[in-house]
Amino acid sequence: MPQDAHCESRLVAELKQIVGEAGLLTGSDVRLRSCDPFRPIPIESPAIVRPASVAELSRVMALCSALGQRVVIHGGRTGVSGGAFAGADELVISLERLNRIEEICAVTYTAVVQAGVVLEALQNAVAERGMLYPVDLGAKGSATIGGMIATNAGGNRVLRWGMTRQNLLGVEAVLADGTVVSNMNRLLKNNTGYDLKHLFIGSEGTLGIVTRAVVRLVPAPVSQSVAFVSVQSYRKLLALLGLARRLVTLSAFEVMWRDYYELVAASGSGRRPVEPAQPYYVLIEALGQNKELDEKLFEQFLVGAYEEELVADAVTATSGKQVAELWRVREGSEVIVREFGAFVSTDVSIDLRHIEEFLARLKSLLQTRYPGVRTATFGHLGDNNIHIAINVGPDTIGEESNVERLLFQAVGEFAGAITAEHGIGRLKREFLPEHRSPAEMGVMRQIRAALDPAGLLNREVLFRTGEGS
Amino acid sequence: MPQDAHCESRLVAELKQIVGEAGLLTGSDVRLRSCDPFRPIPIESPAIVRPASVAELSRVMALCSALGQRVVIHGGRTGVSGGAFAGADELVISLERLNRIEEICAVTYTAVVQAGVVLEALQNAVAERGMLYPVDLGAKGSATIGGMIATNAGGNRVLRWGMTRQNLLGVEAVLADGTVVSNMNRLLKNNTGYDLKHLFIGSEGTLGIVTRAVVRLVPAPVSQSVAFVSVQSYRKLLALLGLARRLVTLSAFEVMWRDYYELVAASGSGRRPVEPAQPYYVLIEALGQNKELDEKLFEQFLVGAYEEELVADAVTATSGKQVAELWRVREGSEVIVREFGAFVSTDVSIDLRHIEEFLARLKSLLQTRYPGVRTATFGHLGDNNIHIAINVGPDTIGEESNVERLLFQAVGEFAGAITAEHGIGRLKREFLPEHRSPAEMGVMRQIRAALDPAGLLNREVLFRTGEGS
Repeated sequence: MPQDAHCESRLVAELKQIVGEAGLLTGSDVRLRSCDPFRPIPIESPAIVRPASVAELSRVMALCSALGQRVVIHGGRTGVSGGAFAGADELVISLERLNRIEEICAVTYTAVVQAGVVLEALQNAVAERGMLYPVDLGAKGSATIGGMIATNAGGNRVLRWGMTRQNLLGVEAVLADGTVVSNMNRLLKNNTGYDLKHLFIGSEGTLGIVTRAVVRLVPAPVSQSVAFVSVQSYRKLLALLGLARRLVTLSAFEVMWRDYYELVAASGSGRRPVEPAQPYYVLIEALGQNKELDEKLFEQFLVGAYEEELVADAVTATSGKQVAELWRVREGSEVIVREFGAFVSTDVSIDLRHIEEFLARLKSLLQTRYPGVRTATFGHLGDNNIHIAINVGPDTIGEESNVERLLFQAVGEFAGAITAEHGIGRLKREFLPEHRSPAEMGVMRQIRAALDPAGLLNREVLFRTGEGS
Repeated sequence: MPQDAHCESRLVAELKQIVGEAGLLTGSDVRLRSCDPFRPIPIESPAIVRPASVAELSRVMALCSALGQRVVIHGGRTGVSGGAFAGADELVISLERLNRIEEICAVTYTAVVQAGVVLEALQNAVAERGMLYPVDLGAKGSATIGGMIATNAGGNRVLRWGMTRQNLLGVEAVLADGTVVSNMNRLLKNNTGYDLKHLFIGSEGTLGIVTRAVVRLVPAPVSQSVAFVSVQSYRKLLALLGLARRLVTLSAFEVMWRDYYELVAASGSGRRPVEPAQPYYVLIEALGQNKELDEKLFEQFLVGAYEEELVADAVTATSGKQVAELWRVREGSEVIVREFGAFVSTDVSIDLRHIEEFLARLKSLLQTRYPGVRTATFGHLGDNNIHIAINVGPDTIGEESNVERLLFQAVGEFAGAITAEHGIGRLKREFLPEHRSPAEMGVMRQIRAALDPAGLLNREVLFRTGEGS
């Protein structure tokens, strides 16, 4: 935002001409919003623009482009990597009024949605028609489809249906100069030139502002089988995953390490489905379309796992209440909050073959510096994605960036990913160049410079761009 | 290739220094190769360079870049859109010596392959380890992984496993200036910056030369069930597809229209599994991991289809020989060749809801101009992809581009894709701007100009680039 008060008021006046009174928030309406889901981090921008149509957004960006005005794009503000942080010289553009589900089709299994549609609203609308949008995550009550596209959101069932990228057919976006690029493809097979949607998916709002999308749907499952098992060794855990991969209905393979399970099982919350006597615990879920046969498939898988002696102990559930209770063991983050107080939350991907070595190395690095370190380890093993909650003592928050540096050192040694699903945002930006090669960083810069030469879109996200970068 | 003989010999001499004698073909070794799989179309280039390593290829491109030398990239030369055509002023780069399978891992279900690996070689190598690379197509004996990545190849089982794009984790490519961009990700979840592989997938060799890839594997199926059914109406056909979508083992839903089936059934080839009395015929295939229960699932699906009166007549098969015989009905292209002689082959995607209207419109356009037109219509209905073989009389070959113009006019009226899986290449280039918006064409040009400003890579493919474009 130009600091000159005259320029600022000119900008606000011109924006109001485009989006009207209802389309512009200023003053305390801006100040009362946080741009982080866990901590109150105020938006420093002088204004939030809320276009009610793609045409309005296009005019807003043409104006910003003419004035060299930088913008930060807001979806549901559920991201944990600081992608929504907005400074005093940045204008916030919120997609919240572009929140219409335009079409749901049970023949083509597609839905056309605007970027501001909240995930749960889409889930509910398609469920009424017997379908499922397979991307699911904890923040579904706030996260928007546009934000999920910009960050290529993952979640619990990536093993079966993939991340957001795999569940999109078309995307429309507004470029920094206001150009509307509509790539609203509805066809499963389409090789007519570059598949432009992939530029916008996962680029964290740095190449364009996602406005609409065509998403893929699948039939809503009619059966759900869940087993909770304990496993004696990492070798057996990998063998169990190998067996589970042959279950065509497999939808989740969620692993909890001993440090996590003992914490949750001892918490007095009644979440202790099996004896806490083994190093690994797994929640295995299957979702299918034929209740009777799906249960048999699942049963035969478990029998096989017993016969091959891959499982020490097991309980199973097929009713909604029991299933929910088993999932609650996996979703014990509030127990970690209670037991650890503050903790550093992590989101890394590591090659399956090296996860145990990686964890040993990480713990050794942490213990050297923080002898009292405590961890709780869990994750989506089939996706290579593990989360480790780390507490290093009373000053855990103050030590966050030091802990992350040790974590990312270990990730680098095992050629892992410093972010599996949360994204780089502003908070991990300094680490990005250490985990992508100079050639890769070069191509990223070239692409960004081609689409947004002045660096107006989410300028502080991923890597610095534009003047003085 | 610079026309100046001195420059040319300098180029050849310098290339030989990089790739050695074995790495360079000239004269009749070039002339004897065709760059089209169906017609003898000679390569006009003075030389074919065959680097034996990524480092050699990088040096070749650095040299070409310094000299402004344009190149055409060759995989298995099985593409049908002219992507491999090479003129006298273009140097051919063949990836044929980069043909090593570097690694196959049954824990992570991934393989690391060089671009010149032939699809069938990969299929066989992973089958020995109990796994499947799910992309399959007729040209598997020649098509290379690199070429399949560059063209985002599809095939028969896209409905279940997606196209090439959905089966890749990482890609390495050499840019026009020789820079090696290695994005050899092996992790299912990785949001660490832009996902650069998607730039190279499906961009038909215009943004970089694919050299290596990490592909995803799935467990090799142990059961195969196939049904061949006839259907009375398009409404019932869509309902049958809807029911089939709820079969978790579904791997193919291949529809043949009456014009196709009558041709094949009357051909005396014994391919007539059901009475030719209905407008639609469908081959439905399921692949699974539990022989006994998979067959029950398939049986219950068929019983459901009968109960809902979606199927007029049906035969099923679960043994290898019977299954192969049913697939032969669907793979009757040699019957079309015999009956039609020459025909225009097409590869379009149309919204499922409008395929019948589209076909009616196309036939009306064709009949107005060619009263004796004959068609044979079949396709991957679940993927929206239909192929129509069109014969307009003795001069069908001469009329090819006029027939295509009518076809693409109809495709445009129904917002379809002029190429579902074959790509644009050189042969459909003139049609591309009519089927992507000016804004989309603009972004494609910006991206290409950013990565290959001089237009050295496959310059005549997709859209003209570089000087005089």
